[in-house]
Parts: sequence; C-alpha cells; structure tokens
Amino acid sequence: MANRVRNFGAGPAALPLPVLEQIRDELLDFRGTGMSILESSHRGPAYSEIHEEAMTNLRRLLEAGEEYEILFMTGGARTQFSLVAMNLLTRGSRADYVTTGRWSELALDAGRRFGAVREIWTSAPHGHDRVPGDDELAPDPRAAFVHYTSNNTIYGTQYHRVPESGGAPLVCDMSSDILSWPLDVSRFGVIYAGAQKNLGPAGVTVVVVRRDLLERSEPSLPETMSYAAMAAKRSLVNTPPVFSIYGLALVTRHWLSQGGVREIERRNREKAELLYAAIDGSEGFYRGHARPDSRSRMNVTFNLPTPELEASFLTGAAAEGLAALKGHRSVGGVRASIYNVAELEGVRELAAFMNDFRARNG
Amino acid sequence: MANRVRNFGAGPAALPLPVLEQIRDELLDFRGTGMSILESSHRGPAYSEIHEEAMTNLRRLLEAGEEYEILFMTGGARTQFSLVAMNLLTRGSRADYVTTGRWSELALDAGRRFGAVREIWTSAPHGHDRVPGDDELAPDPRAAFVHYTSNNTIYGTQYHRVPESGGAPLVCDMSSDILSWPLDVSRFGVIYAGAQKNLGPAGVTVVVVRRDLLERSEPSLPETMSYAAMAAKRSLVNTPPVFSIYGLALVTRHWLSQGGVREIERRNREKAELLYAAIDGSEGFYRGHARPDSRSRMNVTFNLPTPELEASFLTGAAAEGLAALKGHRSVGGVRASIYNVAELEGVRELAAFMNDFRARNG
Repeated sequence: MANRVRNFGAGPAALPLPVLEQIRDELLDFRGTGMSILESSHRGPAYSEIHEEAMTNLRRLLEAGEEYEILFMTGGARTQFSLVAMNLLTRGSRADYVTTGRWSELALDAGRRFGAVREIWTSAPHGHDRVPGDDELAPDPRAAFVHYTSNNTIYGTQYHRVPESGGAPLVCDMSSDILSWPLDVSRFGVIYAGAQKNLGPAGVTVVVVRRDLLERSEPSLPETMSYAAMAAKRSLVNTPPVFSIYGLALVTRHWLSQGGVREIERRNREKAELLYAAIDGSEGFYRGHARPDSRSRMNVTFNLPTPELEASFLTGAAAEGLAALKGHRSVGGVRASIYNVAELEGVRELAAFMNDFRARNG
Repeated sequence: MANRVRNFGAGPAALPLPVLEQIRDELLDFRGTGMSILESSHRGPAYSEIHEEAMTNLRRLLEAGEEYEILFMTGGARTQFSLVAMNLLTRGSRADYVTTGRWSELALDAGRRFGAVREIWTSAPHGHDRVPGDDELAPDPRAAFVHYTSNNTIYGTQYHRVPESGGAPLVCDMSSDILSWPLDVSRFGVIYAGAQKNLGPAGVTVVVVRRDLLERSEPSLPETMSYAAMAAKRSLVNTPPVFSIYGLALVTRHWLSQGGVREIERRNREKAELLYAAIDGSEGFYRGHARPDSRSRMNVTFNLPTPELEASFLTGAAAEGLAALKGHRSVGGVRASIYNVAELEGVRELAAFMNDFRARNG
C-alpha cells in the first residue's frame, strides 16, 4: 500500500491494514455462505458467531469478569451521556461529574436533564490543560455514580490512573483510549466507548456494565435504551449494526494476535514519547497544550509560534502524506491523534517532519 | 458469482451486487484519499460528499419536497417507536395507532410510555391477515399523529395505498417497503425506516420529517434523539454510522441509474406475481397467510399442509441455493422476502421449485 497516507485524524481513525484486507477479501462471500456479511441475518449462524466473538474478544482484552455485561448499542458516546443518567440516576439520588473538556461538559449537561448532578471538579479555569489528582477530588460516596472522561481528544489530556470514586460506581467515557493501556475493570461501574477510534468502524457503541447496576434500569425505558433490556437479549433486541460489530470482532482479534493490551500500551508509550520529545526538544517552538503529567498518549496537541506557521506546518505535513493533523475546530493548532492502530513508522515520520520544519522555520 | 445464493432473508437483506463490488474495490483506498472510507473523518470532504449524496439521492427517489428534512439516525425502527412519541406527542395531545402486526403493536406500546395513545383498528382478531380499508378507519383529526406500518414482514400484508389520516400528520414505519413503489410523500408527517431491507447495510435509520413538525421537539430532548436538533446539524450532531450511510449512498445511486422507484415497482410486481401465482395455482397445497387484497409484495408468507412438508420444503430449497426461507420464529411456515434488490431470476427459480415440490409431494 505505497499510497496509504499516515492518518492522524481524531476519528473515525485508522484501522489495521490486515483487517481492512480481510473485510475486502470476504466482502462478497462471507466464509462460504454465498452472501456478504452485510446481507446475513442477525439471527443466523454466520453473524451470531461474529457477534459472540466480538463480545468474547473484548472481554478478554479488557480482562472483564463475568460480573460485567458487554453491550453493543448505537448513537455514540453522545447518546450514552443521556443513557447513563436514564439508566443509573434513580429518583432521589445524585451523580458527581469531573469535567476535563468538551465531552465531559456535554455529559454533565445531559445528566442534568434527567436528575440531580454535581460538578465536583473542572479544569475549565485553566483551559483544560490537565486532569485532577485524587487529592483534588472528593466524590460523594453515596453518589449514584461518579462520571469522568479518561482521555480528552480536543485538549490532549489523559488520566494515567483510574481515579478514586470513594465507593460510588465509577462511570467512564473511554471512547478515545479504551484498550490503550491495561486497567482494572473491576474498579468501574460502567465503561462506554464509541468504536471509531480504537475498536473498529463507526456505528457501534460498547457499554461494559457491572451486572448489579442493571437493576437500576426502569422497566419503562425503551428496550434499545435500557442497559437491562439490552443485556437480557445479548444486544439483539433488534437488528444490530452488523458491519460495525463485524469490524470490531476483526480489530479485537487482531489485537489478541498481537499480544493484547500490554503490547498495545508498549507501542503507545513509544509513539507518544517520540512526539513529546520533539515538542520538548524544540526550545519552545512547539508548545504542548497539556501539562506534562496529564499528557495524552492518544492525542498530542500543540501550537506553533504563529497561526501562519501552523498553516504552513499542516500544508507541508499533508504534502508528505501526514494527514489530518489540524486541531479541533474549537481550539485550532495541531493535533496528532495516535490511537492504538497508528503505526510507529508514521509517528517517526511525523517526529522527523517536526524537527525538520523547526530547523527550517525556527 | 456462481456461488452466490438466492437470499430470501427478511433482513438484513441482499444488496445489489455492483454495490458490493464497488465497496470491495474502494475499501482500502477511497477514491484516491489514501485511506478507507471507514477511516475518514465524518467532517472531512470525502465523507461529507457521501453524506450529502445519500440525502440527495434519497430525496430524489422519494420525490420529497424541500418542506421535508431527511435525517440519518441510529437504533433502528425499534428506537423510532419511542422517538416518534418523544418528539411529536406533546403534552395534552393524543396519538392514534393502526395495528396490523407485531411491529405496529410494539410502536403502540412504546407510544403509551410517553403519552396518550389510542388503538383505532387492529387486525389481531383475524390473525393479522389484512390491512384496513379507509372506510374502517376513523382517526381523530386533532390527533398528534396517526401511526401505521406500511408492510408487515411477519404476516406478509401490505398497504397498497396511503391511508387517509383525516388531517392529522401521518406517521409511517416504512422499514420494509420504502422505495418499493411510488407514493406521495406530501401525505406524510414522518416516514421512518431502518436501512437493512431496502436502503443499504444495517446501522442507519432514515427519518423523513415535515419541517413544521420539528417545532414539537422539546429543547430538553437529547440531541441525538431530537428530530429538530438532528435536522439543525444535518445529522452530524456526532459521528454518524459512516459505513452504513456510505452503503445507502451507493444503493440509492444504483436505483437512480436503474430507473428509480417506478422501475423498482415494476420489478416488484412481476416478482410478487410469480410467487402468488404459484400459491394460487397449487389447489390449496400452498396456503397464503394474507388475504388477496392485502398481499405484500415484499414478504410472501405461506404454509404447507404439514410441518413435516414445510421442513422438507426448506431443506430442499436450501439445497438448490434458495436460502433463508423460514418463516418468522413467531409464526413458522415459509416466508420469501423479495425486497427491491431480490433478483427476478432468483424468484423465478423459487416459483419453479414451488411447482416442482408440489408435483412431487402434493
């Protein structure tokens, strides 16, 4: 694939090339069934096997115990902002939210529409440049849940630990860093994630929910919005997003064959270090947005001395096949999204381009 | 594609072979972008063009005027059962429902959770064997809306006209027969349809909504559940189901090149007539479920004299590459789903098999 660009887009993000090749190769005839997986009944044997494999692979990669249900829903994390509250924020209870960027602000705003919420910490006053330490958080142990966003794609900050929730169920939007490092799933009540950054093609949302929390879903909730109803039917209340779950099965299979989450983390550290070294060695030419202890290994965000240099940087990078580096439209600058699938070689090329661009313009 | 089976599954259903081939051919490099469409940003030029094309093609095929918005949502018709009521059933109003099978029963049940509803007609007492005539319906002209299901996949009945709603906005679940015959969209308030039978791959739900009805969506609704919010952002509130919309763009482009909905209808009539002729000429060996005037051109449902013969029929058909003919698990028997994409040649083969099977077993 000589003409394949290095894709630093924030999502939908790059997929493993062997996965794309497999999708292509079996697109017209799925494993001898005489039809495409796109044409297969969601209740037939071909798709059922994929559906179960996707759940099993994900459970293995997350090392999630049997006390957790894995759900395949739709509507993205944005829909989960509401569904978390609709399912877990029972009458008379209150939820605590930690706000570290745009997505957690939207989650808080959605929660507010369904019940009592409290913002217990926010990085807004200092431009969302870091995540809090545990000593800065005092969640209510009786909270319905404590919600946080593990990685902030726009600002490029990330938690490198699971925060303390003081005993309340921890709920995490892990859309942008799920499977990027090994973490203890048993610390969570709910993990949710849109697939399109680290899990597979857009169109499916993964929800990992501790079984005892399913009791909170009111029976009056629509089935496709109810964690309990979706769990009871193994996410087959109705036709699921077949292709996206198929893609997720292949991506998770790929990672299992590559050594699992520990190997993913090793690669992610190496990639992120290359870019942060280019920033730190630039004598202030590249100014990283995140404070060093909160730096994301998924989204490396930085500015150049002037908007003109930023524009020139983006144009020059694109000309060398380093694509989709523009910062989020709300903050500008440069953003290199280096999710699990981003290849080391491409990140090396970007680091070299950064050094070269500075030498020419610094 | 010598080994391609004739797929009579009820959905996800067959896709046009040229569409599958195009998806395959451009899967690794989408039109010179150096990446897959699966890896493209939903806000970048490559995907934006697809998104707009999908909307435009659908508008052209439906001949929907500018007073209608076309939305791309997720969660299937099952989710729309709730969203229709959440968006349109304002406080103090009441909605009328016509019940002609399992899906309209579920829509009614969902509506009941959000407001006042009334069932104005049901085919349940006679086993959902037909749809009502206009003289049997007396919808309330002040109803928030009148809801019906245009084609009933399980029982094999279908409306061959747009029913009178007495002035109230008509809301239709058209999941299983959208684009199957030309109809006057201006008669409708809302049309919704999961894509996976006639529009493209599973994972996207189309909602066609008359603009003036958007005023009813409460601002407190979550954006991904609000017709008004989705319309305001051209269905890009968050990452859409990229691949499914891409597939929909290709399928609708295919139909435009084939002559549009009038040509689809011509083919559908020809296909359905072949199978109903096999039933009607069988001297009672094949017993169609639907009354003749309500027969579906999408799902042809029938029984054989004994369950043993039905099992033998299904096995024999599968051996000849006529796949997925088993009736819905709730009713049994045989169901031939012959959506827009089903090829005439395959339907001919099925009709021939029916005649042959009867000759051998009648």
